[in-house]
Amino acid sequence: MPSLPEALAAIVGAPHVLSAAADTAPYCTDWRGRYVGSALCVVRPGSTAEVAAVVKACAAAGVAVVPQGGNTGLCGGATPTQGEVVVSLVRLNRIRAIDSANNTLTVEAGCTLAAVHEAAASAGRLFPLSLAAEGTATIGGNLSTNAGGVQVLRYGNARELCLGLEVVLPDGQVWDGLRGLRKDNTGYDMKHLFIGAEGTLGLITAAVLKLFSRPRQTATAWAAVADPAAAVALLTRLREHIGGRVTAFELVARPALDLVLKNVPGSRDPLAGRPPWQVLIELSDTMDFDLAAPLEVVLAAAMEDGAVSDAVVAQSDAQVRALWALRENISEAQKIEGVSIKHDISLPVSRIAEFIARADAALEAAFPHVRIVCFGHVGDGNLHYNQSKPAAQDNVAFIAQTDAVNRLVHDLVHELGGSISAEHGLGQLKRTEILRYKSATEMEMMRAIKQALDPRGLMNPGKVL
Amino acid sequence: MPSLPEALAAIVGAPHVLSAAADTAPYCTDWRGRYVGSALCVVRPGSTAEVAAVVKACAAAGVAVVPQGGNTGLCGGATPTQGEVVVSLVRLNRIRAIDSANNTLTVEAGCTLAAVHEAAASAGRLFPLSLAAEGTATIGGNLSTNAGGVQVLRYGNARELCLGLEVVLPDGQVWDGLRGLRKDNTGYDMKHLFIGAEGTLGLITAAVLKLFSRPRQTATAWAAVADPAAAVALLTRLREHIGGRVTAFELVARPALDLVLKNVPGSRDPLAGRPPWQVLIELSDTMDFDLAAPLEVVLAAAMEDGAVSDAVVAQSDAQVRALWALRENISEAQKIEGVSIKHDISLPVSRIAEFIARADAALEAAFPHVRIVCFGHVGDGNLHYNQSKPAAQDNVAFIAQTDAVNRLVHDLVHELGGSISAEHGLGQLKRTEILRYKSATEMEMMRAIKQALDPRGLMNPGKVL
Repeated sequence: MPSLPEALAAIVGAPHVLSAAADTAPYCTDWRGRYVGSALCVVRPGSTAEVAAVVKACAAAGVAVVPQGGNTGLCGGATPTQGEVVVSLVRLNRIRAIDSANNTLTVEAGCTLAAVHEAAASAGRLFPLSLAAEGTATIGGNLSTNAGGVQVLRYGNARELCLGLEVVLPDGQVWDGLRGLRKDNTGYDMKHLFIGAEGTLGLITAAVLKLFSRPRQTATAWAAVADPAAAVALLTRLREHIGGRVTAFELVARPALDLVLKNVPGSRDPLAGRPPWQVLIELSDTMDFDLAAPLEVVLAAAMEDGAVSDAVVAQSDAQVRALWALRENISEAQKIEGVSIKHDISLPVSRIAEFIARADAALEAAFPHVRIVCFGHVGDGNLHYNQSKPAAQDNVAFIAQTDAVNRLVHDLVHELGGSISAEHGLGQLKRTEILRYKSATEMEMMRAIKQALDPRGLMNPGKVL
Repeated sequence: MPSLPEALAAIVGAPHVLSAAADTAPYCTDWRGRYVGSALCVVRPGSTAEVAAVVKACAAAGVAVVPQGGNTGLCGGATPTQGEVVVSLVRLNRIRAIDSANNTLTVEAGCTLAAVHEAAASAGRLFPLSLAAEGTATIGGNLSTNAGGVQVLRYGNARELCLGLEVVLPDGQVWDGLRGLRKDNTGYDMKHLFIGAEGTLGLITAAVLKLFSRPRQTATAWAAVADPAAAVALLTRLREHIGGRVTAFELVARPALDLVLKNVPGSRDPLAGRPPWQVLIELSDTMDFDLAAPLEVVLAAAMEDGAVSDAVVAQSDAQVRALWALRENISEAQKIEGVSIKHDISLPVSRIAEFIARADAALEAAFPHVRIVCFGHVGDGNLHYNQSKPAAQDNVAFIAQTDAVNRLVHDLVHELGGSISAEHGLGQLKRTEILRYKSATEMEMMRAIKQALDPRGLMNPGKVL
């Protein structure tokens, strides 16, 4: 009888089964190097039928499966722990169909997000999901983790951008749910169960995505505000005057901006006077409509009220890129600065200011000299509320505080009705942490669902639950 | 030991338990009178705690529960079959919270959709779900059936408008999932499982709803097109020029319009020459932006191409109301005309024209003199593709053809990648019909979910599954 790797080689071809440690290593660790596991082998099927046969063979052998896309996750959701079969979806990278009249795109799970953007553009449409790793991250991974990013305010998370799925189930059956329908009320919505399940209920092999009209105009501004409450008030004011055209609204605290100015060459502070808080605003319109004018009107009114102390509206594409670079380089700048403790949290937008004030005060009291690096998609209530190591502290001592810092931050998030994982998922990182915050009732329901769809626990074990 | 109605009276108070047949009758039949069942009793709890205690008492007694809101459903999803306890949610009608900065509204399940609109308006916001029964239909019922309506094109179905739920589970536990978060990736999305489940997995008692900026401007037009393909082409053209401002795009076939002109006093054809197909277009904008101008530009270009043969842009609120009345009175006009066979179907927008051509031809061949009344939310791919009785045929003979007509229509819908229930749900009406079209794999998953969350089958039995 052939071994499991031999059986898998018979399905996908020997070159697409990797067993040597040197070959499997890149698939067995996440890109931040936080999780290092081992795999029985890595399989790279080339079609949905091959994925199904691979999963069926693994199920027959009682060996667990770890689905993996671009392996850009931040929570260890796509790396094996010990001895699983990693199923890499990167060879499932065909654009299956573009339907312009229906505004849909059917793609395989291994397409990179960048490739999906290109396919949408080729049809004169927009696929709005946008995030830093889009050149490597795959749409299958984006859906499995319900990815967010900078355009959620206007277009929603990955979940909202998907109409249908094709999924290989834990026993190797294929569920063809590739429907391109805006309305379909024929029973339980299985699609939404697989989206965000991080591969623990089945393996997404293809999806039908929503397309949108492309923006013809954008306007971008950088504004200084006194504090987070003023930022939220400015967002409300913008929405009241400009409504759905507000596409992004990002908050950047002074320490976050300072890290970029220090560590990323060519960065320049757009405003004088070192304001403590700033927001990056982007408006867009699918028609030729002068967005800068109403943006200037709102900012001028806010400056008159004192709600905004200073602001600049970008006058060229280069200026737009420079403003966005300040926001997008924060993570990189923080990495250059040294080790950090990160929190990807969300709150009702109305509780953002209270959260930051209380969390800052509590952290400063408990951890003298802590450097709080706060920024994020405040329009979605999503903060990246991070801590960088004080210059004088050594790495080990700083990292040793992680659990205590998490406890303080996450307890406050929970008290204010927030989530301890806004857009990154649970993976391995937060699967025990969540037990502190989710009700027993909700955990019990999640376990019942897992038991119903994957009774043998063979799909991505040790993640989420 | 007290009887179950006595136990329930101890929970909710005797006046809120109805047992006499005359009292329970309105709760035991749907508003179209198609489904008539019987209930052990009707209970009207006044709080979530009371709902939980009621469900727990029923579970202890092994008696099934039927959740009911405004009882305006079209598929018999909210009426009992025999001997269940009907739990009417109409007394749970408080607006629990309005959060303007977070753009959310927390409401109890028994609030009518109209009351939800009012609460949103009181905060200067819009809750966009809109449908004919909104004065009676409750938000709990809207969510349980994932209601659609005329604004889905722009804002999505009920599902897309909900951020969080409170649900009483089949064993009487309360799941507090009332989160007001735009991003929350902490495990399986249980909310989406209860939405659209028609009360078969649990009983929705409250919800957090998304609010939007109110439109400041609208523009409304009525345009004549040669056929459905021209209608879809006009929609694509509008979206390319006007993008997200297209709020509604409704198709009306000549026979549907003729029924309104005949049966609804005061109706007037907006265009001369009896065009065979017409579309009702609505644009909206949250800023003061002259929408009539670009609408006229697109319509003029379409007329030059011959894609549109005639069109009128409403010049007053009265004209807007008159145009919408033509669309909204179709169902009523069809009811006045006599018995009908109805289909609430959806298709990819790109298959609409092919569907109508092929379904019309097949029906006319199989059922001579059949009167096809076709209209719907074509922008969502959702058609109400109905048949009215030929004048010369008697009711019994016409209705006897229902199964044969359904078979022909639904088989074609399925062949073209559509859904046999776009916005009305399965209820009792289509729960066996769906077995013909859903894969065994999908039905098996749905049954596994039902078994996991309601192992004793006590929540709304005989519906959906």
